[in-house]
Formats: sequence, structure tokens, C-alpha cells
Amino acid sequence: MKPAGIEWLEGGITAVPGVLASGVAAGIKPDGKKDLALIYSTAPARAAAVFTTNKIKGAPVRVSMEHIRDGTAQAIVASSGCSNVCTGEAGLKAAREMTELVGSLLGLPASQVLVASTGVIGMLLPIEKVRAATPALVRALTPQGGRQAAEAIMTTDTRPKEAALRVDVGERAVTLGGIAKGVGMIEPHLATMFCFLVTDAVISSAALDAALRRAVNRSLNRITVDGDQSTSDTTAILANGLAENPPLERAGRALRQFARGLEALTERLARMLVKDGEGATHLIEIQVRGAANRRDAMAAARTVANSPLVKTAINGQDPNWGRIMMALGKSPARIAPDRISVAFNDEAIVERGMLRPGARLERVRQIMGEREYVIAIDLGLGTAQDRVWTCDLSEEYVRINGKYTT
Amino acid sequence: MKPAGIEWLEGGITAVPGVLASGVAAGIKPDGKKDLALIYSTAPARAAAVFTTNKIKGAPVRVSMEHIRDGTAQAIVASSGCSNVCTGEAGLKAAREMTELVGSLLGLPASQVLVASTGVIGMLLPIEKVRAATPALVRALTPQGGRQAAEAIMTTDTRPKEAALRVDVGERAVTLGGIAKGVGMIEPHLATMFCFLVTDAVISSAALDAALRRAVNRSLNRITVDGDQSTSDTTAILANGLAENPPLERAGRALRQFARGLEALTERLARMLVKDGEGATHLIEIQVRGAANRRDAMAAARTVANSPLVKTAINGQDPNWGRIMMALGKSPARIAPDRISVAFNDEAIVERGMLRPGARLERVRQIMGEREYVIAIDLGLGTAQDRVWTCDLSEEYVRINGKYTT
Repeated sequence: MKPAGIEWLEGGITAVPGVLASGVAAGIKPDGKKDLALIYSTAPARAAAVFTTNKIKGAPVRVSMEHIRDGTAQAIVASSGCSNVCTGEAGLKAAREMTELVGSLLGLPASQVLVASTGVIGMLLPIEKVRAATPALVRALTPQGGRQAAEAIMTTDTRPKEAALRVDVGERAVTLGGIAKGVGMIEPHLATMFCFLVTDAVISSAALDAALRRAVNRSLNRITVDGDQSTSDTTAILANGLAENPPLERAGRALRQFARGLEALTERLARMLVKDGEGATHLIEIQVRGAANRRDAMAAARTVANSPLVKTAINGQDPNWGRIMMALGKSPARIAPDRISVAFNDEAIVERGMLRPGARLERVRQIMGEREYVIAIDLGLGTAQDRVWTCDLSEEYVRINGKYTT
Repeated sequence: MKPAGIEWLEGGITAVPGVLASGVAAGIKPDGKKDLALIYSTAPARAAAVFTTNKIKGAPVRVSMEHIRDGTAQAIVASSGCSNVCTGEAGLKAAREMTELVGSLLGLPASQVLVASTGVIGMLLPIEKVRAATPALVRALTPQGGRQAAEAIMTTDTRPKEAALRVDVGERAVTLGGIAKGVGMIEPHLATMFCFLVTDAVISSAALDAALRRAVNRSLNRITVDGDQSTSDTTAILANGLAENPPLERAGRALRQFARGLEALTERLARMLVKDGEGATHLIEIQVRGAANRRDAMAAARTVANSPLVKTAINGQDPNWGRIMMALGKSPARIAPDRISVAFNDEAIVERGMLRPGARLERVRQIMGEREYVIAIDLGLGTAQDRVWTCDLSEEYVRINGKYTT
């Protein structure tokens, strides 16, 4: 999706004016890789965030939920290697101290700092390591540090994920940038993994919050790797206003343009997350149209996207379309089996709920050899549509996750 | 579970008086293995059945749903290698012809024959092969043929599954036997895979139907291999009355005893199904107690049982208890994170939602090395409880399912 007026830029968060970032190794990860990231807006910023809806929320999520309440924040500190979830009062204390450490070195109240941690659940954050590393983290802040921060939030990610763009809002252009991490335990509902966004737009907190929720709902909430849902999902955006555009606050063309730019950015990051799903070798867009209503379209797409048998067939490049039918049949969506059609990209394989006469299975197999393709489903019942992005289920996924803590 | 008055017997369906069975190779499976099974009660029988709730139902399921309507049936014919699902009118015609072929050779109306097919979805049953093999199938019927039939319904099962028992109902004993097949696409809701049961009890159709639904709900509906749900699930029972017990029809002690026997049988077969889940190396009972209500207990148990990250940790024998917490948090069940405790068998690992001080992770790892164990979860909220059986998610599962049709 590339709406008019959008120009993609190199880099990620530090492509945005007034944003500094850094990433260092604090020793939380046993292998000595970077595990502490900092994003800092030199100017005060409006902020918005959405968090996991898992009923078990990590200590950092709970602290950030408090700190975002006034709609402002100027820094985000994030660690990887330990998620600080299910760690009780000690965990909460450690998460709070992270915001205090960063705040005091940056001359900010702790409430201006958001915090996020990712990694194994159930281990207390080694706060003494964070304490020791924070001064170096703050010293390392630079206008080129975006990639360092993107690396420092990685867990089993195989590559850092960043993106940036410029979008016209009315007569002015504003810049948006983001970094993300993903890989496993991914089926966000109203929030996802880590996705940290920044912009130089002048925008009200309320408008920023609405734009963020809409963009997340259309992108990060439509991806699935394994149907599991993290206890640490955090998506946050800081808007420092350095673009000096006329304030974006009321519904209108300029705000719509900003929202589209934000959605393009989160969609790009979301696709990166799925593409780098644990063990993933394919990025599949599951499109459902012809549904009785939007909710059914979403439910049908999600059920197909999460079916282990569909996902293993994608992995094996096996045109086993019957499993797509099976998944549609078990989904909560209303269906009429003999009205369903299915295509891989433009190659129709199922018509009226059966193998299409003359279906070219060899051609479908070829398409399934591609890194990215679309499975297009028409339920033939109505006009509603929706889509999700998913990846395959590979032996590598099992290998990665069989020995995660050991 | 072994209630008083139950005695396990060798064998399966043909352990029941008046039941003949057979299994032959009709050439549906390309490897020449047995693929056509027949179960025949020499005496007229009451019958009951439950079927998949997948909205896409195979042609054989639709035919059997018609034939069971009058509460009687005297034979079950089942094929493996092709499920005859998503095959339109031609598929329905083939399924009907299977019941006619068997019926005419056994001197029964087709409506006295139930039919079931399992295998790849979307391929039409090669009815000419069934037509050619049916005479041999009927000739092969013997009072020792239960194992042959159990083999002929296998797909990726690694072993046939059969069980039989004798249970006292009042002053008389009746015999119950069953065969089953399972392996993938298993998360039954109100029906499961193939499970064919027979008994010599004298019992009314209504009582038989109620006992079957109760037993299935407590056993076969509480297993999950991959959360996918077949389009062919069929569980049926024939009761030929040869035991000459006082008729089981009204609620009372004798009917309760029969129901307990039936439940013990279906539970045993259900456990066999999970144990032989595709690629499975462990059979895990997920117990949830302390839930606010029964529905929550079930939802929590199911969410843990279906989490790919929990299942890969079980496979890797990794005591990654945080994933159990994650799954509980994403389940629809009401929870209070700091009231949750978790044990592996009797070894407590989580208390008040956190790692128990002094938790013996090495001991937990040992337990996880066992072929079967229990994960016991206490939500600490109420008195409701429930349980499900699940297996691990292995690389072998992905291998088996990546190339199923190719």
C-alpha cells in the first residue's frame, strides 16, 4: 500500500528530526549481544501507546500504562533477553527504576519515560546490570543510532526491522519512523510485540492516539505467527512537533494523510515481523472477501492463518486446498460450502467448494515456491472483506521453541 | 479412570458377542495397505452417533446423519486414504453407493449401514475400487476381525487403536468394544475422528444416544493434537442386545454403570489417539482447577493445550512455565495472575503467579522426560475444574504435514 504523497526514506526512528537513539550490551543476554535500547526526543513530545490485551501483563507494560496516561512522553527505554513478566513486586520495582535511571540522566521526570522488556517470561530483570549500563546508553545517543536501538530489542529475530517515510499533511511534510521486533508468540489483539514509532508532526495527543489505534488495528493486529499472544506487547509513538506543521487535531484531510502515512509505516513493519517469524520461509496474505460481514471476514482469515495444517502445507509447498476448506468450516464465520472459491495469487483452484475443473495444481505449486504470495478466498455470501498476514510453520519453529530457556 | 465393576478385555470391537468385522485393501491407498473396514452386528441393533461440528461436512458424514435418524443401524463401512469431502453431488452418490453395496450383500436396507471416510480432503472417492472390493470385504467378516478393521481405518496412525471391557449393569454384565483412528486435524468439538463402538447391551436408542454424547463429551471432546478440526469426524455405537440384560432405558444405577463403562472405553481410546498424535512423543493431561466456573476451566485448559509455544516446550522438555502463564492470560477464562499455581505432576513450580522460591527445575525437567505426565493448574478463584489431553508439537509433525498430498 503506497498512498499518494508518501515517500519512503532510509533508516528508521532517527530518520525523524530531533530523535536520538542508542543500543548497548548490558549483559542481560548471556551471549553479549546488544540488549538495551533508548529512544529520545530532544523536544517534549505528545505520545500514545497500545499494549497487549493478554490478562497477564509484564511489569514494564504496567509501568508504561501509567506513564502514558497524560498523553506525553519523551523517551522509551527497552531491554531484551528477559521480559520481566510474572515477577511480582520486585519486577515492578525494577521496571520503575529503569524509567528513573533514564529520566535522571536525561533530566526528565520518570513519568516521561516509557519502558518495555522482552525475553523469557518469569525471570526477574537483573536491574543491577541495567543500572551499570544506563550511563553508557545515554552517552551513546546519536542522530544515527536508530539501527543500534533496532538491534538491541531483538530476541530470536534474524534481522533488525526499521522503516521511515515522509508524508505530506496539507502543505507541509512530516516524517515518521519506526523500529519493531517480533518473531514468536505473535497473534496480537489490539497491540503487538514491540513497535516504537516517532514523528516530528505537530499533533494533539487525542488525534495521535486515534491515529495509532487505527493504524495498529489495520496492520499489526492483522498478523499472526503462531496464534500465541505475548505478555509484553507494546506499541508506542512519540510526536515531537519539530515539523512545525499546522497542528493536526481535528478530523480533516491533513489528519487523514498523517493517518495513512502512519498506517503505511506500521504495515511495512508488520510485514517485516511476519517475514521474520520464527522459522518462517513464506509471507502469506490471506484475503477473505464475499463475507456476510467484516467480523466474519476477519474470523475466517484468522482461522485459516492460524491453522497448523494450513501452515505446514505452506511450508511444504503442498497445494492441499482441502485444509483451507477445513479451516473455513471450523471458523466462527458464516459460510456456505458450495459458494466458496479459493485462488493462489490469480490462479483459481477451488470453485463452488470443490476442485475447479482443469485446476492447474502444478502452477499453484510454483506460486507456493515464491517467498510471498496471496491466498484469496471468496465466501460468496456478501460484500465484506478483510485480510491478515501469516507465515508458514516449519521444523525450524519447533527447533527454536523447543529449547528456548535451556 | 477405572470405576468399580469394570474389567478390561483383550481386543476391541469383536470382543463383543455378535459382532463381526473385517478389513481389506481396496486400492484406495496407493501403498496397498488395508483401506476398507466393515463392522457388522449379526443381530439388529440400536445405534447412536455424533459427527463433526465443522460446517464443511464430508459426503459420508451427511449420509450417515440421514441413516442414524431412526436410532438403528446394523453395519458400519469405513474407508481410509480419501475422505470424500468437498466432492459435491458425485461424492454424495459415492457415499450412498457404499451403503447400498454393503447393505445388499448383507441383506440389509442401505439405511441400516453407516459410512465414514478419512484421508485427503477434496478428492472424489474411487467408488469403482470400493465396488470391486466389497464382496471380499463381506466374505472376510469374522468374530476375530476387529484388529483388521482397526488397521483398515488408519491414515498416518502408527498403530491400530482398540479397547474392550466388561461392565456390570445391575445383575448382568455387558460387553463394550471400540476402535478408533486419529492423529492430525484433531480438536473435536462434539465429535471426533473415527471411533466405532459396539456393545451387546439391551438399551433404548434414547438412552444410548445420551450415554454416547456424555461419554464423548468427557473423553474424545477433551483431546487436542493441533487444534484443527476434521470434516469427517464420526463416532458411532451399535448395541445389539445379545447380553439380554434388563433393558437400559430409564435413569438409574444400571444405566449409570453402563455410561461409566462407555466413558472408560472412550477415554482409553481418546488417550490412545493423543498418544499417537502426529509426531507426538508425550501425552499430557492438562488439569485446571480453582476456576470460577466449568466453562472457564475448560477454556483455560484448552488454551494451554493448544498453545504452539507450550507444545514445543513440552517437545523440548523445557520447563518454560512462563508460556503456560502466557496461554492462561490469553484464554477467555477469568484469571487473577497472582493467584495462579502450576505443578508438573506433584512438583510445584509456580506459586502466586511467580516462580516458587526453591522451585526444583531439574526435577521438573525429569518429569518432562516421561512419556506421560500431568500439568496441574490452580486458578485460585473458585471450585470448578476440567481437563484435556494434549501432545507435544514436534518437527516430525511438520514433516508429516508439509507433504501430505504430495
